[in-house]
Amino acid sequence: MAAPERLSGVLCPVVTPFKDDLSPDLERLVQHCRWLLSQNVGLAVFGTTSEGNSLSVEEKISLLDQLVDAGIEPSRLISGTGHCALTDTVKLTAHAAVLGCAGVLMLPPFYYKDLSDEGLFASFAEVIERVGSDDLRVYLYHIPPIAHVGISPHLVERLVTQYPKTVVGIKDSSGNWGNTDALLQLGLDDFRIFVGSETFLLRNMRHGGAGCISSTVNINPAAIYELYENWQSEKAETMQADLDALRSTVQKYPMIPALKSIIGNLRGETQWQTVRPPLVALGDDQKSKLLDALHELGFQMPGFID
Amino acid sequence: MAAPERLSGVLCPVVTPFKDDLSPDLERLVQHCRWLLSQNVGLAVFGTTSEGNSLSVEEKISLLDQLVDAGIEPSRLISGTGHCALTDTVKLTAHAAVLGCAGVLMLPPFYYKDLSDEGLFASFAEVIERVGSDDLRVYLYHIPPIAHVGISPHLVERLVTQYPKTVVGIKDSSGNWGNTDALLQLGLDDFRIFVGSETFLLRNMRHGGAGCISSTVNINPAAIYELYENWQSEKAETMQADLDALRSTVQKYPMIPALKSIIGNLRGETQWQTVRPPLVALGDDQKSKLLDALHELGFQMPGFID
Repeated sequence: MAAPERLSGVLCPVVTPFKDDLSPDLERLVQHCRWLLSQNVGLAVFGTTSEGNSLSVEEKISLLDQLVDAGIEPSRLISGTGHCALTDTVKLTAHAAVLGCAGVLMLPPFYYKDLSDEGLFASFAEVIERVGSDDLRVYLYHIPPIAHVGISPHLVERLVTQYPKTVVGIKDSSGNWGNTDALLQLGLDDFRIFVGSETFLLRNMRHGGAGCISSTVNINPAAIYELYENWQSEKAETMQADLDALRSTVQKYPMIPALKSIIGNLRGETQWQTVRPPLVALGDDQKSKLLDALHELGFQMPGFID
Repeated sequence: MAAPERLSGVLCPVVTPFKDDLSPDLERLVQHCRWLLSQNVGLAVFGTTSEGNSLSVEEKISLLDQLVDAGIEPSRLISGTGHCALTDTVKLTAHAAVLGCAGVLMLPPFYYKDLSDEGLFASFAEVIERVGSDDLRVYLYHIPPIAHVGISPHLVERLVTQYPKTVVGIKDSSGNWGNTDALLQLGLDDFRIFVGSETFLLRNMRHGGAGCISSTVNINPAAIYELYENWQSEKAETMQADLDALRSTVQKYPMIPALKSIIGNLRGETQWQTVRPPLVALGDDQKSKLLDALHELGFQMPGFID
């Protein structure tokens, strides 16, 4: 097994379908992953959009195993692995590395707040040292609007300096271009900077970024990939505007239930709407307003494959 | 085994000692628990002060088993059990109930933010239904300054109405007397309201509250218990002022490392200072300033027993 390549492009933080008993629905998950791969995007399972933090380590290990068993290429797959407890993060990260995943997307421990860079550095370092694998590739996950614990550019620089072959990228979901720009300005060698929303995709590509990992890739992968591939074309600004229009329509609703409603509607499967508490599925009224708004926007139904 | 009684009094969110390899130090934990019990306070393990969210479910289950095996009475013990993942919370909560713990202290799932009361109600309800034990006693854990997900008085009322024999109390660590007062005003039958800091202990007792569960009980149990026992005495205001002076001195430093430094100093064991990342132990300079300030305050060394 060759060591994983550094990633670039468009990755999808794959939504996790659930059965009525709230257990993960493997069959639908595999189907959705296959379709996403067919649209030229990579897979980022167990991120925020995946309700990844609503799943236990055991559930995630089992799903990773089953995804690979079902033929999903681990080289096209990164896994969210950052938990509050050091021991949880180590266990899941080690498993992803052994499976040959292209990398892990690692949240900082997010229960305690107002942490020092020293404490966060120690957390990431302890995980990397304990996993101790040459095949581990860490993409840091900066999402202060939700985690309320961030990863500063200074901390990124320190981690990359200490672990240049392991800490290879970041997902910046700050929603703040200034932060992405500060990361780009660090000029770290071959460090892969992904924006957490396609809203910043064109800007990121123009400044040397690697791509995006965005929730809406779950419903709009082809168009987002098209901008990634053609960011230097004359039509890039128009493509960006179209992506923005779709995203702003969807994000008037709670994002995860909205994506699941859209996928469920496209596939004609209401089971897709199930979320785990504490999230709540869209009500019928919200759902029909959302679908009407997408229709008005001329949203193209993607060609689902099974 | 009789069903657990509803609690009142002073409980200690027990700090968790670690060995050099960052694994929990059972021997020191048992020793500290025994000393706390001898000071008339109950035990709340795996709360915020316990670095409870820095431990995996498996580590917590193992420690609970070992504490009970070591002779700690489960009737004097409640356990933090609230995780982000439903399945984690169910597993740990069920184990605490089977062990005969007096109750569990349950955080809401705290990764996703801006949650609806409906989603939080569904979370707690799902846990209670899945555990399905007549012996389960849930103390809700409201700590918005850290969890950034709170439990509103309205949600408390709804949960108590639905599960009157199971949802029996709350720890209010909002640091906001207005919120505690709103909970007291609900007038829920025999509902036990604990403040999360002894700063509010006298006020809570005067308004019909049940006691406090506060980090500083780790170093100052006797004096806090004395105020609880004698809140109607003439000296109550003076006792409260003394408690406040000690607390305000300690909380100039990061609370958990500060408590561990103080215990380590009193016991003459530097091992006590170890914290799990992302927390950081106090530096030597901070530590000596803290100890000097406590000395100036005339802080009485508690009589440790082994």
